[in-house]
Amino acid sequence: MGMKISRRRFIGGAAATAAMATLSLPRRTEAATRRADVIVVGAGLAGLTAAREIVKAGRSVLILEARDRVGGRTLNHPLDSSRYAELGGMFTGPTQDHIQALAQELGIGLFPTYNTGNNVFVGGDGRREEFPNNTPLGTAPADPVVAPDIVLAVEQLDQMSTMVPVDSPWTSSMAEQWDRQTLDTWLRANTSGSDEFMAVTSAATEAIFGCEPRDLSLLYTLFYIAASGDEQNTGTFERNFNTAGGAQESRFVGGAQTIALAMAGQLGGSVMLGRPVERIEQSSLGVTVYSGRLKAKGQRVIVAIPPTLAGRIDYDPLLPPLRDQLTQRMPQGTLMKFDAIYPTPFWRAQGLTGQTVSEIGPIKVTFDTSPADGSLGIMMGFIGGHEARYWENQPPDQLRAAAIQNLVQFFGPEAASPINDITFNWSTEQWNRGCPVAVLGPGTLLDFGAVLREPIDRIHWAGTETSTFWNGYMDGAVRSGERAAAEVLPQLL
Amino acid sequence: MGMKISRRRFIGGAAATAAMATLSLPRRTEAATRRADVIVVGAGLAGLTAAREIVKAGRSVLILEARDRVGGRTLNHPLDSSRYAELGGMFTGPTQDHIQALAQELGIGLFPTYNTGNNVFVGGDGRREEFPNNTPLGTAPADPVVAPDIVLAVEQLDQMSTMVPVDSPWTSSMAEQWDRQTLDTWLRANTSGSDEFMAVTSAATEAIFGCEPRDLSLLYTLFYIAASGDEQNTGTFERNFNTAGGAQESRFVGGAQTIALAMAGQLGGSVMLGRPVERIEQSSLGVTVYSGRLKAKGQRVIVAIPPTLAGRIDYDPLLPPLRDQLTQRMPQGTLMKFDAIYPTPFWRAQGLTGQTVSEIGPIKVTFDTSPADGSLGIMMGFIGGHEARYWENQPPDQLRAAAIQNLVQFFGPEAASPINDITFNWSTEQWNRGCPVAVLGPGTLLDFGAVLREPIDRIHWAGTETSTFWNGYMDGAVRSGERAAAEVLPQLL
Repeated sequence: MGMKISRRRFIGGAAATAAMATLSLPRRTEAATRRADVIVVGAGLAGLTAAREIVKAGRSVLILEARDRVGGRTLNHPLDSSRYAELGGMFTGPTQDHIQALAQELGIGLFPTYNTGNNVFVGGDGRREEFPNNTPLGTAPADPVVAPDIVLAVEQLDQMSTMVPVDSPWTSSMAEQWDRQTLDTWLRANTSGSDEFMAVTSAATEAIFGCEPRDLSLLYTLFYIAASGDEQNTGTFERNFNTAGGAQESRFVGGAQTIALAMAGQLGGSVMLGRPVERIEQSSLGVTVYSGRLKAKGQRVIVAIPPTLAGRIDYDPLLPPLRDQLTQRMPQGTLMKFDAIYPTPFWRAQGLTGQTVSEIGPIKVTFDTSPADGSLGIMMGFIGGHEARYWENQPPDQLRAAAIQNLVQFFGPEAASPINDITFNWSTEQWNRGCPVAVLGPGTLLDFGAVLREPIDRIHWAGTETSTFWNGYMDGAVRSGERAAAEVLPQLL
Repeated sequence: MGMKISRRRFIGGAAATAAMATLSLPRRTEAATRRADVIVVGAGLAGLTAAREIVKAGRSVLILEARDRVGGRTLNHPLDSSRYAELGGMFTGPTQDHIQALAQELGIGLFPTYNTGNNVFVGGDGRREEFPNNTPLGTAPADPVVAPDIVLAVEQLDQMSTMVPVDSPWTSSMAEQWDRQTLDTWLRANTSGSDEFMAVTSAATEAIFGCEPRDLSLLYTLFYIAASGDEQNTGTFERNFNTAGGAQESRFVGGAQTIALAMAGQLGGSVMLGRPVERIEQSSLGVTVYSGRLKAKGQRVIVAIPPTLAGRIDYDPLLPPLRDQLTQRMPQGTLMKFDAIYPTPFWRAQGLTGQTVSEIGPIKVTFDTSPADGSLGIMMGFIGGHEARYWENQPPDQLRAAAIQNLVQFFGPEAASPINDITFNWSTEQWNRGCPVAVLGPGTLLDFGAVLREPIDRIHWAGTETSTFWNGYMDGAVRSGERAAAEVLPQLL
């Protein structure tokens, strides 16, 4: 029943296929050189947003996308002619105004993430509890063993994050102190540090970052929290991890990938698929971007792909060493999604939201990601960080069995028999190499952060990792594309 | 007077030029396909050692080197017809038996690093002290403000390192506890953590690792210490940082690069220069290694380049995700060398060894690297970690002035007027991207270490970063090449 996913299959369902028909697939006979004012590398949300802004301003653009689909870290997986699972970024919430404005402009609506009833918590000893999802802790478990530490940690982290400027975390007066330790170190020193609490923090960071608290710089974590807001609203960790009032509050009608597909549809033939970029040359005259036999020439280039992939492009002249060494220090997190499909969202009848925090993996966080009409039940589980690193090397049927065992523990025996299930590992994706975001360890922001989005002559950087707000989220990707376009446009002849 | 170095110039002096004449430089007309039993990527010490072992066993080999020289992180820079500065790895010492045995076999002798007299220490307030270099602290400063903490830290680290198996640090019973914190965190918690002491630890890690204590996982640091030994001798931090009895005890006659040059001379036309490898394909039949129009076909391939470069090669099929994510987490350190050349090693007459530890940079550690006959004075300073990251973005003449100011403070007014000086930044080298070694932050060894040298079907891994002993040193490179050859040879048809 478990499906091994072939990458080729995911181009976003029927609507997607129609949209894609207008895009350029490689033809071996086509002209070796194409020209545009701006070349964009990557047709994820960042690259497409940048391209759209450039076209809006009346300039020409050419987008080179490595894959045979657009959407980057958003991905619709068709289940039948009208229904789909979302295997990538899918949620949005308050203060994520840029992705929401873009969706609205494209005629893509929102609907609320299912969030009625109780959440489930499973402790390290296997105890299972249900608690209302509207406690002061929000989505965090109200379990008496871990709740006091959660409150303690979140309050302090939120407070500390107000001292981190989102556009230059390295300039905080506390930057050095906070970038010389891991989140793990700080948590143990500033809470009870109990095994139960630390296990809950792992569940959180595995889902949010695809890594463990030990992999994270404290300063980077505080930046990420500070970035969970906008120009008017201070970032908070709660807005980051909550459903009601938080980043998981809503979903996009038709799936988040629809946003990229709609943009690509508008951009038409300027989106070239199957065009991995190997080399970027720049001179005082312009840029040349190479993909196989294709040369794309322009005045400027916007590189809108994850830093670890941007670092693998061959640049001539070489990038400054600080920039190359930065990309060496921005590994992607490790994240898999497990989707179990049921005839109905049966947990709703049990008074459950479908949201879980568990100290026992592989799945430690779940969401009800069923279609808006509830005509099918989709239970999505995150397998991240250490769990993903362990399980991706085990036989797929063992992972599947362990994941379903998790779901049975969370939601009862009905969870044992999905009609279908999907395991999707973002680390095996050649054009991601991990998800959901680059994970910064100690020392990186402090010594290398200043070059994160600094243009290098005619090369500009986009992608959610370069965003000041909602870094790591779809909203950050859109913001970064807007910012890169705004950088480039005044420079064009 | 300051020389801006052109990469093309460094092929190792007159002897080197003679040796290189036998090697293959790319010819545009040559056959597109070459075959050998084993293809080796990289002609540093690891790759050349592996190739030599394979040839010794009667099998054929082809070595593809990206640069127009061999030697990787070793590099002779000719000063005149017989004298040179060494811009890369240059020292060796007790228990580094593999590089020394190799040198002996190649007829390359050793001579002692100049080490007579007092070492210099400069504190954070600018105070300058001299102390004998044979105190119980070895090369570490005997300054009363910092010495007690140094003793305390080194004793504990040495003791802890005995619990770290060099072939599998992640299996230590303390692995999780030690890989969830930085060296910086541990130092502050287990010494006075004074500013003066922490500045000394920065001086040490900047020279040893090209990074700051905050960039280092404690577990990785302990592994590095444990690796500073061999099968008979427990590793110690002292053996790592000391001159007498330590890793800086001796130098190679003719310069360390001579070892690579001699091996390349023996291997002759099987060493192909100017051949950066872009792609490696493997199937059940063998491997094909691509460099431009050249296809090198073999039964197996040994990739003997730094992990961050190995990660940029295009592999078909893709490497397992854990391997790719490991290389995303093995950034190179940041290291520059500043060599000031004087008519004589004038500091010797002042009773100084030429060795310094300074809390004030850019140069924080120095060595007398004059020719064996003392016919010229060469003072070598390490500019590493934060210092290198800062100074590589400042105008070169400002860096030069600051470096010479350091030397004047260390050795007096005669240091103000070198007859020549060289600044060499390993981070701007396309085929290094940093030096001296990959720097592992928290969490990497624990979750990813197991795939560090695990072959992936027909792909084998060498390079000093894969060594169990003297990881990060020339000896480790040689050991890794021997190990990779020993892996491959029994598999050949």
